[in-house]
Amino acid sequence: MKKQILLTPGPSQVPPRVAEVAARPIIHHRTPEFREALARIHKNLQCVMGTTGDVFILASTGTGALEAGVANTLSAGDKVLCAVAGKFGERYSEICQAFGMNVVEIVKEWGGLVTADDVRKALESHPDTKAVFVTHSETSTGALHPLHEIGPVVREHGALFIVDTVSALGGVPMKMDEWGIDMLAAGSQKALMIGPGLAFLGMSARAWKAYETSTLPKFYFDMKHYKKRWEEKGETPFTSAVTLCLQVDEALQMIMEEGLDNVIERHRRLSRACKAGVAAMGLKFYSENRSDIETVVRVPDGIDGVALVSMAQERFGIKLSGGQAQVKGKIIRIAHMGYATEQDVILALSALEMCLARMGFDAPLGAGVKAAEEVFQNEM
Amino acid sequence: MKKQILLTPGPSQVPPRVAEVAARPIIHHRTPEFREALARIHKNLQCVMGTTGDVFILASTGTGALEAGVANTLSAGDKVLCAVAGKFGERYSEICQAFGMNVVEIVKEWGGLVTADDVRKALESHPDTKAVFVTHSETSTGALHPLHEIGPVVREHGALFIVDTVSALGGVPMKMDEWGIDMLAAGSQKALMIGPGLAFLGMSARAWKAYETSTLPKFYFDMKHYKKRWEEKGETPFTSAVTLCLQVDEALQMIMEEGLDNVIERHRRLSRACKAGVAAMGLKFYSENRSDIETVVRVPDGIDGVALVSMAQERFGIKLSGGQAQVKGKIIRIAHMGYATEQDVILALSALEMCLARMGFDAPLGAGVKAAEEVFQNEM
Repeated sequence: MKKQILLTPGPSQVPPRVAEVAARPIIHHRTPEFREALARIHKNLQCVMGTTGDVFILASTGTGALEAGVANTLSAGDKVLCAVAGKFGERYSEICQAFGMNVVEIVKEWGGLVTADDVRKALESHPDTKAVFVTHSETSTGALHPLHEIGPVVREHGALFIVDTVSALGGVPMKMDEWGIDMLAAGSQKALMIGPGLAFLGMSARAWKAYETSTLPKFYFDMKHYKKRWEEKGETPFTSAVTLCLQVDEALQMIMEEGLDNVIERHRRLSRACKAGVAAMGLKFYSENRSDIETVVRVPDGIDGVALVSMAQERFGIKLSGGQAQVKGKIIRIAHMGYATEQDVILALSALEMCLARMGFDAPLGAGVKAAEEVFQNEM
Repeated sequence: MKKQILLTPGPSQVPPRVAEVAARPIIHHRTPEFREALARIHKNLQCVMGTTGDVFILASTGTGALEAGVANTLSAGDKVLCAVAGKFGERYSEICQAFGMNVVEIVKEWGGLVTADDVRKALESHPDTKAVFVTHSETSTGALHPLHEIGPVVREHGALFIVDTVSALGGVPMKMDEWGIDMLAAGSQKALMIGPGLAFLGMSARAWKAYETSTLPKFYFDMKHYKKRWEEKGETPFTSAVTLCLQVDEALQMIMEEGLDNVIERHRRLSRACKAGVAAMGLKFYSENRSDIETVVRVPDGIDGVALVSMAQERFGIKLSGGQAQVKGKIIRIAHMGYATEQDVILALSALEMCLARMGFDAPLGAGVKAAEEVFQNEM
C-alpha cells in the first residue's frame, strides 16, 4: 500500500475541503445562492490578480482564456510580439498565428528568459506592434518572466500587454494593475487548487478600448457577453460550470484565510527547500530563472528520465512530471503549487534520491532531504 | 425541513454515485488510468449519439460545441439556414452571425416547429446554402424538431446538417449517422447527468471534408488538434477537465447498465405521466410539439408565473423553471431528464397543484397526481 501524491505542474492536488464541495447536490446557476458564490469569487480573484478591473470566469481550460485575450483585442493582420522561451510561449504564438496575426517572435532557448531589454529592442524594430504576449511562469522549463520589468516598457510604447499566468496565479506575486497588464489569463488546476475546467480572465480598461476596434470573430469567448451579464445580473452569460465554480469559491476562501501574502511566502519557502535539496544531491537546474511553483532539474547523463518518473510513481507513489517536446526524458519537474506542503517536498526529494541511487547515480542517500530540512528548520 | 429537488432543464440532478466521483483525489490526465476512462467515454458516447464516427470531449459548456460546429466547417460569407423557433435557435443564428455567415433564418413562432417541408422550400430558394442549423429539443419552448425528417432533405441538397442536441442527448432517440447529421453538439448537464462544464461533439466524414476548406480562425475549438491527439495518444489536446470527465464516464456507465433503450423509454414514460398530469389539472401546453425531456405549460391567466416558481421552491423544495425572454412569467417548465424518476414527476405535479390552488386557480387538488399515477400503474 502507498499513498498517491500528485506533484505535477497541473493538475495539482485538491484539498479535501474543496473536493468535498463537488460531491454536494448540484444547485442551479440562476439563483441567489450561486450569485453570492460568484460575487465572492469575483472579489477574491481581483485580490489574487492584483486588479480593481474586470475579472471573468470561463468554462474552459487555460487555453480558452489565452484565446480570449487574442480574440477580444485584435484584428487579422495586426502585428504582435510573442515571447517564446518554452512550450507555452510557443502556444501563444500558435494561437496568434491561427487568428491571422502578423507574429514577430522573440525567441530564446528553452529555459531562458525574454527580458525587458529584449522587448524594448523588438518594439523599436517594430513600432507598429499592437500587442506583446508573455508567458509568466513557463511551466515547460521552470522559468519566470520578469513582468514587472516588461510591463513599463510595453506601456511606454503603447502596445497591449497580454499575459499567460495559467500556471502561476496564486503561487507567485501578481500585480496586474501595477505592472500594466491588459489581459491576464489564468487556470484553475494549478495554485488555485481545483481540478481543470475553469479559466479566469482579467481585462483592463485599455483592453476594452481595443475591444471596440477588434474585428476577430468570436462568440463563446466574446467578453462583451460576460461583461453585460455580470453587470446586469451578477451571472455568467452561458451556463456556469457550477461544481467547479463552487470549488474555486471554497479554494479562494482557503487562500484568503491563510492570507495571500502567506500563501505566496509558503510557495517561496517550499521552492527554496526543494531547490536546496536538488542542489545538494548534485543535480543541475534546467533554467537559471526559477519560478517558485516548480523545481525543474536536468536528468543526469546516463539516466533514463522517463524511467525515473515511472519509478518514482510506481515504487513511492510520487507523481512527478518529465519534460515535454524537445526535453522529453531530459528533465524532471517537481511542482510545489497550491495545496503543496513541506511534507510534499520532503517526500519528492526522498523519492528522487532513492530512485536516482537505484539507477546508478552517485549521490549519498539523504543529502537532498537534509538540505530541505535545514531550510525548514531555519524558519521554525 | 424539506428536500431540495432540482427539476430545471439544466442543470439536472446528479446521481450520488456520479457526484461522489468528483470528491475523489484528482488524477493526472496523461496517465493510462485516465486514458482508459476517455476510451470508455468515447465508446459510450458513440452509442448514445448513434454514430461510428468521430466523437470529441470539450472543456466548455454546450455553447462552445455549437461554436465549434460553425468554426470548423464554414468560411466568412457562406450562406447558412438557421431554424429559429425559440431561444436556442436564436443563439445558433447569433453564433453564425458573429462568425460572418450570410444567415437566412427560417422563423416560426416560439413553440412552433421548423419542418422538413420548411427546410426544403428554403433550400430551393437558397440553393447556395452551405449548412442547415437546427436545434433538436428547443428547451425554451419544450418543442422537439423532427431531425429524422429534416436530415434526408438536407442530405439530398448536399448541405451540411448541424444540430444542437445540447439538452436532449440521452433523453430522446438520436441517430446521428442514420439521420445524416454532420456536426452534433451536446452538453453534460442535462440527460447525461453531470454538472455543467463539458460539451461533446460528433463529427462526420463530410464535416471533415468541409473542414479542409474552412477558413474561420480557431484554436481552442479547432477540432484538428482534438483528432490528432486522440488518434496518436487517446487523449485530449488541452488539459482535460479531469473530474468532470470521470463523472461523465460513471454517468455513461449507468446509462449502459440501465440500457440506452430503457433510459429513453423511462424518459417517455415520465413525460407521458407529467403531461397527463398537467392536462388533468386543466392547464394548457405551450407547444404542440412536445419533447420528452420536459413539460412546458402556460401559466393560467391571472396567475403570476414568477411567483409560482418561487412558491414551489420555497414551500415545497421543488425547483422548476419559468420562461426566458419573451415568455418570462408566462410558462412553467418541468424538466424530467437524466436522473429523473417517477417520484420526481409525482412531487412536481403535487407542488404545482398545491401552489396553483393557493394562488386561486380553480382545479381540484390531486387531479394531476391521479392522472400520472394512472400512467405509471398501467405500466407496473
